[in-house]
Amino acid sequence: MEANNVHRRFNPLTRSWVLCSPHRAMRPWLGQKEEAAPEGPAYDPKCYLCPGNTRASNPPTANPSYESTFVFDNDFPALTAPEGSAEPSANATNDSSDIESLLFQSNKAAGLCRVVCFSPTHNLTLPEMSHTQVVSVVEEWIRIHKDLRSNHPAIHYAQIFENKGAVMGCSNPHPHGQVWATDYVPQEPRDELDSLVAFRKEHAGKCMLCSYAEIEEKRADRVVYSNNDFIVVVPYWAVWPFETMILSKTHVSSIEDLSESQQSSLADAILALTIRYDNLFETSFPYSMGIHGAPILAASQEHAHAAHLHLHFYPPLLRSASVKKFLVGFEMLGESQRDLTAEMAASRLRALSPVHYKKRSM
Amino acid sequence: MEANNVHRRFNPLTRSWVLCSPHRAMRPWLGQKEEAAPEGPAYDPKCYLCPGNTRASNPPTANPSYESTFVFDNDFPALTAPEGSAEPSANATNDSSDIESLLFQSNKAAGLCRVVCFSPTHNLTLPEMSHTQVVSVVEEWIRIHKDLRSNHPAIHYAQIFENKGAVMGCSNPHPHGQVWATDYVPQEPRDELDSLVAFRKEHAGKCMLCSYAEIEEKRADRVVYSNNDFIVVVPYWAVWPFETMILSKTHVSSIEDLSESQQSSLADAILALTIRYDNLFETSFPYSMGIHGAPILAASQEHAHAAHLHLHFYPPLLRSASVKKFLVGFEMLGESQRDLTAEMAASRLRALSPVHYKKRSM
Ligand SMILES: O=P(O)(O)O[C@H]1O[C@H](CO)[C@@H](O)[C@H](O)[C@H]1O
Ligand SMILES: O=P(O)(O)O[C@H]1O[C@H](CO)[C@@H](O)[C@H](O)[C@H]1O
Repeated sequence: MEANNVHRRFNPLTRSWVLCSPHRAMRPWLGQKEEAAPEGPAYDPKCYLCPGNTRASNPPTANPSYESTFVFDNDFPALTAPEGSAEPSANATNDSSDIESLLFQSNKAAGLCRVVCFSPTHNLTLPEMSHTQVVSVVEEWIRIHKDLRSNHPAIHYAQIFENKGAVMGCSNPHPHGQVWATDYVPQEPRDELDSLVAFRKEHAGKCMLCSYAEIEEKRADRVVYSNNDFIVVVPYWAVWPFETMILSKTHVSSIEDLSESQQSSLADAILALTIRYDNLFETSFPYSMGIHGAPILAASQEHAHAAHLHLHFYPPLLRSASVKKFLVGFEMLGESQRDLTAEMAASRLRALSPVHYKKRSM
Repeated sequence: MEANNVHRRFNPLTRSWVLCSPHRAMRPWLGQKEEAAPEGPAYDPKCYLCPGNTRASNPPTANPSYESTFVFDNDFPALTAPEGSAEPSANATNDSSDIESLLFQSNKAAGLCRVVCFSPTHNLTLPEMSHTQVVSVVEEWIRIHKDLRSNHPAIHYAQIFENKGAVMGCSNPHPHGQVWATDYVPQEPRDELDSLVAFRKEHAGKCMLCSYAEIEEKRADRVVYSNNDFIVVVPYWAVWPFETMILSKTHVSSIEDLSESQQSSLADAILALTIRYDNLFETSFPYSMGIHGAPILAASQEHAHAAHLHLHFYPPLLRSASVKKFLVGFEMLGESQRDLTAEMAASRLRALSPVHYKKRSM
């Protein structure tokens, strides 16, 4: 019934439903179109991320002449640094019966915001980088995670993410991602962790995402790519048209626990996926991506262990380099809605060349 | 502490947290800018919503020469019509211990999608319409609700919404909204209802939103507008920069229960709010808005009564007619994040003229 009919699917990680209207991808589109960014130069003297250039920090700082990755503290951070204590912020969850205090709950929040340049080359993106270069990015993420754990005792969680493309709020095409590290576990990873912990309790210690990865590999119809250590799928409950997840096949909780060969496999998977993304509409494919794994300081051993390392990719494009899916009215007020099935999206991505379109000989 | 420091606030309706970084509104913006739509003509021969024009339906249909509102079934509906039964779709929530069936849950879904033209005039929007004209829109919403209840026994919920502006996925500037009516209660209103029902149980039958409206009126610092029957606030837990809620002051559950004078007050509140929105950046202010109230067919009497009529407005603009807030990387993967406090946003909106900028004599 699912293939052509309208139906809903359940996301067991967020415990919410998504409406799927497969026939709807066919409707005409007269609305807003996105503009593709023009190809930039390999070095841009006005870019605040290029090697050697000066950033508008206070006082202005010159970037080093870096050759691989480069990390610095965000000059306009959304979080202010914690005061060094290992104590979590006072938890405001209020069991008082005072209605006013229940309706107006707030909590202190602190953290660190870092920018991670993936490469010194201004006009490169992950899918155009070499495997060795992407491994360096993975290593840098791990290094940041370890540094936060060792040197910033107040930090509970590090959200590693990348916004790629102007349409995803990225204001500089220089290849970079960010890490926002907080003195609490943010809502989304906490909800996922709660689901994983609950599943484990109800299923004699089994991990939901270990089972999920195993079943998807067997079923094969949502798999985009798979190697020894990681599987890339359009999740059964995907919301964005070409949303994907990269899942560790074995139970790895934190990015810090990846062996060298697993790090190499992760770089492989990221490349395999993002190259296909670029090939889909022969454009630099925009997305927001992020890594979910164990908190740096988990609420309990149970929480730390229940986490299962995975990456989410949320790309907005639907039908071409310029027509994106808008998650607006019904999606904001009613429920998430998508216009093609996860299986359709996966089969399109799977069929694409593993070679980047810019590198193909004509 | 809240005014200038980074903190988190709790949304008791969705039971989730939002990160608030008040200092961040000051950072420079070099990213994507939105283009303002050019002013269109009062009648556009190519618009499929203008009176008398032919729509690309199958077979092609001519719109009537309507003079107030006009409603028709969406020619590219996301939902297919239910088969007439009053039975809800089989509920797939699975208590089986079979892991595979738990991870791959789906449900049938059916419904009706209607388009509601607010006015025959192509280049008008709600804030530029007269009070009488907006009252007609409110009356039309109520008429649709009643029609669904009486003539479509399979329908459980009607999500009334408007996407305004190309940046909000609206593909036709002709003033219109939509109604997606489903044979189930969608995720977002169901979550809200669950919160309202739980609050009522824990607080001797008190309604969360009745209390909330009352306290906000007293506190005054988040109030944008208030009349006899409705209050407009930037909710304490707002996510979008200028997000607002219109709340009924007394306990009204369904839009169908509004008296004539309450309908008039609602039209007043919508006008007061949307005029200020347009005045904020002297532009046609984009948003998605929607009405939340009692289901047409509630799970129980308790659920029907617990609902408290309110409207959400989610506008993306942050700093000007062209700079919007992107809810991307951290917001998608970590948690919602905003760049100014709800109080700052409310005080800016409150200070604006109640007269639309286009109608002011120079
Ligand atoms: O039906 P419309 O107005 O063309 O479509 C718009 O609203 C719908 C409901 O919020 C969304 O699903 C679409 O992505 C959006 O472009
Ligand atoms: O810090 P940046 O990259 O300028 O900002 C971008 O990513 C942030 C984190 O997802 C968002 O809060 C901003 O809205 C977005 O424009």
